[in-house]
Amino acid sequence: LRLSKRFAFSASHRLHSGRLSDQENRRLFGKCNNPFGHGHNYVLEVSVSGPPDPRTGMVVPRSQLDAVVEHAVLADLDHANLNQDLPEFNNVVPTTENLALFIDRRLRHSWQERFGNGPVRLEKIRIEETPRNSFEVVSEPT
Amino acid sequence: LRLSKRFAFSASHRLHSGRLSDQENRRLFGKCNNPFGHGHNYVLEVSVSGPPDPRTGMVVPRSQLDAVVEHAVLADLDHANLNQDLPEFNNVVPTTENLALFIDRRLRHSWQERFGNGPVRLEKIRIEETPRNSFEVVSEPT
Amino acid sequence: LRLSKRFAFSASHRLHSGRLSDQENRRLFGKCNNPFGHGHNYVLEVSVSGPPDPRTGMVVPRSQLDAVVEHAVLADLDHANLNQDLPEFNNVVPTTENLALFIDRRLRHSWQERFGNGPVRLEKIRIEETPRNSFEVVSEPT
Amino acid sequence: LRLSKRFAFSASHRLHSGRLSDQENRRLFGKCNNPFGHGHNYVLEVSVSGPPDPRTGMVVPRSQLDAVVEHAVLADLDHANLNQDLPEFNNVVPTTENLALFIDRRLRHSWQERFGNGPVRLEKIRIEETPRNSFEVVSEPT
Amino acid sequence: LRLSKRFAFSASHRLHSGRLSDQENRRLFGKCNNPFGHGHNYVLEVSVSGPPDPRTGMVVPRSQLDAVVEHAVLADLDHANLNQDLPEFNNVVPTTENLALFIDRRLRHSWQERFGNGPVRLEKIRIEETPRNSFEVVSEPT
Amino acid sequence: LRLSKRFAFSASHRLHSGRLSDQENRRLFGKCNNPFGHGHNYVLEVSVSGPPDPRTGMVVPRSQLDAVVEHAVLADLDHANLNQDLPEFNNVVPTTENLALFIDRRLRHSWQERFGNGPVRLEKIRIEETPRNSFEVVSEPT
Repeated sequence: LRLSKRFAFSASHRLHSGRLSDQENRRLFGKCNNPFGHGHNYVLEVSVSGPPDPRTGMVVPRSQLDAVVEHAVLADLDHANLNQDLPEFNNVVPTTENLALFIDRRLRHSWQERFGNGPVRLEKIRIEETPRNSFEVVSEPT
Repeated sequence: LRLSKRFAFSASHRLHSGRLSDQENRRLFGKCNNPFGHGHNYVLEVSVSGPPDPRTGMVVPRSQLDAVVEHAVLADLDHANLNQDLPEFNNVVPTTENLALFIDRRLRHSWQERFGNGPVRLEKIRIEETPRNSFEVVSEPT
Repeated sequence: LRLSKRFAFSASHRLHSGRLSDQENRRLFGKCNNPFGHGHNYVLEVSVSGPPDPRTGMVVPRSQLDAVVEHAVLADLDHANLNQDLPEFNNVVPTTENLALFIDRRLRHSWQERFGNGPVRLEKIRIEETPRNSFEVVSEPT
Repeated sequence: LRLSKRFAFSASHRLHSGRLSDQENRRLFGKCNNPFGHGHNYVLEVSVSGPPDPRTGMVVPRSQLDAVVEHAVLADLDHANLNQDLPEFNNVVPTTENLALFIDRRLRHSWQERFGNGPVRLEKIRIEETPRNSFEVVSEPT
Repeated sequence: LRLSKRFAFSASHRLHSGRLSDQENRRLFGKCNNPFGHGHNYVLEVSVSGPPDPRTGMVVPRSQLDAVVEHAVLADLDHANLNQDLPEFNNVVPTTENLALFIDRRLRHSWQERFGNGPVRLEKIRIEETPRNSFEVVSEPT
Repeated sequence: LRLSKRFAFSASHRLHSGRLSDQENRRLFGKCNNPFGHGHNYVLEVSVSGPPDPRTGMVVPRSQLDAVVEHAVLADLDHANLNQDLPEFNNVVPTTENLALFIDRRLRHSWQERFGNGPVRLEKIRIEETPRNSFEVVSEPT
């Protein structure tokens, strides 16, 4: 049984790679290379799986899932400038690919801290940059 | 080749577990423990897989899929109070987790009756409680 | 300049009119007459209009709009059984038409209390019962 | 007969008013006051009205409407940082209220240039900052 | 109090005007001029307004509204080829503008037949050709 | 890491099988057997997977993915009549099942031509015929 819950956050980023020349950056990223950045309403969907607890009928209480996602992801990412506010993106281009991998690492770490090797497993995350683009990471055990 | 079709139904429920004290119920389920219940527009997505029939070009005629879902699920769940109208939820909390497992059992049973061991297999169901929450059960053969 | 904001709440109701016989109720309301009720994820859109404040650039701070809607509407309606939890629907059928009029009265009253005859006016509310049905009330000054 | 067409663009902004102290800015705008900005996928809906041309059956050829919106709005706003890339927002807080008024002025000007006092009128614009917030400006003749 | 209900139908059309040369048709309509036609999932939203009936709490019973729309619109338009199946489009280009005017005429006529000068008025129709395009006709009394 | 991107196209089709009698066709396909055809706004979601390129942070530049889908699918299918414009559907019923298999073959072929045995793999396609129906094909290596 898999439970998925969606969370929204807004952030800005600039796509610019230190390993490419300015001209290559402009050609590759186009408008996304604009020096002052641009932004998105990201939608994050977190999926966990496990059996329902026979006492509560729930895989995991919603408030516990919310607390992990708030702490591990939203507190730092909501209304942030990814390039400026997050040290992880000092040398890494904040494409939504890299953002998805970053969120997956953060969530797996917090999930492990909070739920250990319990029966409920973090299974995958999916992030939508726009309604037309999405990125999915299937989590593997730490 | 997997075909998925979405169905909508409206129902009400109250989350309250007989294995917990009243106080524990209130703490765990919050507003969902309201004695008179509340409700949702549920969306059910049923996925079946198999090869297209070479004569018709279809995995399964839509009307046959609709008939199974109507008979096995919608007839009893649409505009129902899950706690009161369904004996299955007399001693089981009607969380959407348990509702998903109930729908999966019902559909697998009807599918087996109607299509036996034919080439088209019921693969999974997914139910959205709200646009932010969804629950998925991958069906296993009876 | 009109600002509209959407809010979600879940509630249950039973459509049954004391002015009609049981048979007429069943014929008119069909499944919605089920004695134990059913439910919906309602979406409420509140529209207010006025000029942006030159200091803040906003028609109204979001937190003030949220507070009025929370106090006047969501606190009582979210996760409620309309028939049982709200005295207003003891003798009034809780169709979404009547629910819309109820919300409009409540909001107009709270808006007047909070903003008086200020430049920002409550303009209309729209409520969706399902993605296929919606109901709109254009507010008139108290 | 009113024709409405939707356009998407991504941009970033920071909400900070020069007429308020830093503390007032933080209290009023909260996370939206983050110095490095954040961003959104904005959706712009442009509505024009008039009779269909009897030869073409259209109020306005789609390509002409697209060209006006591209030229007047999207060319400057898509993938922009509103505060940095647009002189209009040097002294004006780029709330979506002010952004809506800016887009309305730009579009009315371009529409007048392109279509003059022809039978097709720019009627209103609506901009969604997120799926939960929208802002509408009813255009008045220049 | 305004009630709006949405209906879906699928149809195909070819945009080609008998008053234009083949070359002008191709230039004006582009791919929509393809001789064999193409199609859309149209969404029709019908809005009616009036006071709720004090006995039923409804502006109009849903089944009566459905019956008028089914009879006046869906029976002929769903799964139709607009150019071939509807005499009205023999000499009129089936743009969604003209389709909206056609649906409005049909609905007003059926509404008048069914409800006469009763308190509930057909107010407007809106038709979406795609999620990005919509067309609205405000109905006037016959 | 899986990247999915959505593309829209409009097309028309008629469901009619040469292996069935006219009566069987009408019974099986109902309104979809209408001789003049009907149409849909199809939504195609293409999913590819692989590691992000360390220099660009992207699994694949968006413009390269767009170019493959445009060339292999949209150029021939957008605004087409599937039965008339595509030789593949002369003897094959253009159900969305068969359309999905056709798109999968075309895309796999173009992907192989463009990216060979590189690290990024075409993983699956999903096509929505309407918001209620979708069809998914998991790609296998050529």
